Amino acid sequence: MLQVELSSHAREFVLPDYFSLAAYFTFGLTGALAGLRRGYDVVGIFVLAMITAGGGGLIRDGLLISSGPPVLVTDPRYLIVVLAATVVTLVLQSPIQRIGKAIAVIDALGLGAFAVHGVQVSLQGHLSLPGAVLGGTITCVGGGVMRDILVRDEPLLFKPGQFYALVAVGGCVLYLAMLHWDLTSPYNAALITIGVTFAIRMLAIRFNWRTTSFYREPPAPPPPPSG
Amino acid sequence: MLQVELSSHAREFVLPDYFSLAAYFTFGLTGALAGLRRGYDVVGIFVLAMITAGGGGLIRDGLLISSGPPVLVTDPRYLIVVLAATVVTLVLQSPIQRIGKAIAVIDALGLGAFAVHGVQVSLQGHLSLPGAVLGGTITCVGGGVMRDILVRDEPLLFKPGQFYALVAVGGCVLYLAMLHWDLTSPYNAALITIGVTFAIRMLAIRFNWRTTSFYREPPAPPPPPSG
Amino acid sequence: MLQVELSSHAREFVLPDYFSLAAYFTFGLTGALAGLRRGYDVVGIFVLAMITAGGGGLIRDGLLISSGPPVLVTDPRYLIVVLAATVVTLVLQSPIQRIGKAIAVIDALGLGAFAVHGVQVSLQGHLSLPGAVLGGTITCVGGGVMRDILVRDEPLLFKPGQFYALVAVGGCVLYLAMLHWDLTSPYNAALITIGVTFAIRMLAIRFNWRTTSFYREPPAPPPPPSG
Repeated sequence: MLQVELSSHAREFVLPDYFSLAAYFTFGLTGALAGLRRGYDVVGIFVLAMITAGGGGLIRDGLLISSGPPVLVTDPRYLIVVLAATVVTLVLQSPIQRIGKAIAVIDALGLGAFAVHGVQVSLQGHLSLPGAVLGGTITCVGGGVMRDILVRDEPLLFKPGQFYALVAVGGCVLYLAMLHWDLTSPYNAALITIGVTFAIRMLAIRFNWRTTSFYREPPAPPPPPSG
Repeated sequence: MLQVELSSHAREFVLPDYFSLAAYFTFGLTGALAGLRRGYDVVGIFVLAMITAGGGGLIRDGLLISSGPPVLVTDPRYLIVVLAATVVTLVLQSPIQRIGKAIAVIDALGLGAFAVHGVQVSLQGHLSLPGAVLGGTITCVGGGVMRDILVRDEPLLFKPGQFYALVAVGGCVLYLAMLHWDLTSPYNAALITIGVTFAIRMLAIRFNWRTTSFYREPPAPPPPPSG
Repeated sequence: MLQVELSSHAREFVLPDYFSLAAYFTFGLTGALAGLRRGYDVVGIFVLAMITAGGGGLIRDGLLISSGPPVLVTDPRYLIVVLAATVVTLVLQSPIQRIGKAIAVIDALGLGAFAVHGVQVSLQGHLSLPGAVLGGTITCVGGGVMRDILVRDEPLLFKPGQFYALVAVGGCVLYLAMLHWDLTSPYNAALITIGVTFAIRMLAIRFNWRTTSFYREPPAPPPPPSG
């Protein structure tokens, strides 16, 4: 399966722009809020919004696909959407901070859209199937990791307790599986993926699903390595 | 305006190499000094000089334009200039540390040269106009952010008090505006941008212009999110 | 020498895949162990293994060469090798933690293979000779720096005491010198480089060779800058 060709029909499918524009807006909101809360100035807030929304796509396009400028800098609408998310956050900061839970819901919708979008762009960039799963997952989580690095938080992604990255991986695999076995049209596969990803993410939040550390204390002597 | 074509004359203009080589040298000095002060060895000092000088260009070329190797690794002069800045810093560390203020002046000259150079390279890489402003700004500030991340400082860029990034954005917009309305030749536009950027940066330092945090304490109940 | 053309024979040489696959496995092991010890979940451990093994190649291909997807996402074997290193680390964590010294030996073998591989890929990407040294060195050390940044350690690379990066630079220069003066076939040059790199790295560990800080206290007044 790793080397198989998808139908050109599936490979050429492009998710309508408004899905990824909407995901840029929701991820941009969460990034701008993070900057706001840390007391950054307008440059810092805009940069965090841009990185949270577009950072995953920049890593995917710049490091994995590497064949031309990403949409963030060729299609002005993406930077405008990020700017809009920044302005909305600055103007409406009090109400937005009150709806923290609603933002988790919006973010969960953006997650599925980014998974589908990232897989498709990766396929069109001629990545392998595991490469496309990686490309889709990075589209979902790369911006958040870059944001965490920039503000010097330890990336949440890695630590037990987060179910976020596994949902992203699952969404990418689900979408590719539907394309690969030609179970439905790419557009329907995209909608199903966004719906399933959203549902699982909501269940993970609601029931507090956790991943676990794999670390076991090594047997007493010799002493555990320090580092 | 966002989609308009610049005249091919403006789009093809190339700032003479010695501007960007000089900017590499001045930014390389500040990076090498940062490594020196932290007690790094020669590898660490060279890497910090290289990242501070070339990091913004690497992000611009690798992540935003993504169509071939950057000059840092195709034109040996750039690495040689970085090496020269490293050696100068190691040999002359006492006098260089005494001229901290002069370095802010030299850095302010490099700032405008990097803004013009970054905008031009972005235009030739077929970015949109907002994309070219982003590309120019990243050329100016990206290296410093990468340096801060590598040495684990919180990026100065984001925090209130810095007027640096806004001057960079302003320089890029000014330069693009002069090209767009065809106010003067690209070469004169470049010189004007470097001069204006330098003057504003000097004024910002002299009169200690500050940006501000936008964070307002949220109303008492419900409690502010912790995130 | 900086601009000279290597023979097309030397420029086209490709190190057999199993060298870089083996290096991915050994570097993947060290990355997975780092994640395991920090108590990360399976996503974090896999990501650290992937970044430690493939991060240097991603920086080289994405930021320095920038002309198409890296093998990590086009050839499924590389991600499978990383996954295997992750699984081996999880399953065999007790014995693996007992053989810390053996890992330093394996890592030193991977180092030379990565230096040769990185130089060759850089030459084929049309970098200058100093650019190829940089590309080879980044292949060796870039993944470790990315791992350190992700887990928020100060990169070991920079600090006095590490002889690692200099060995990598030396290996790249040695290999290029043998190609440039046509001293032997590229394949033999690769084997010699791997052997010499391994020997010097082992000697550096055995005799605890150290690099030193270049920082000298500046003369008393004026006070040293704080930044």
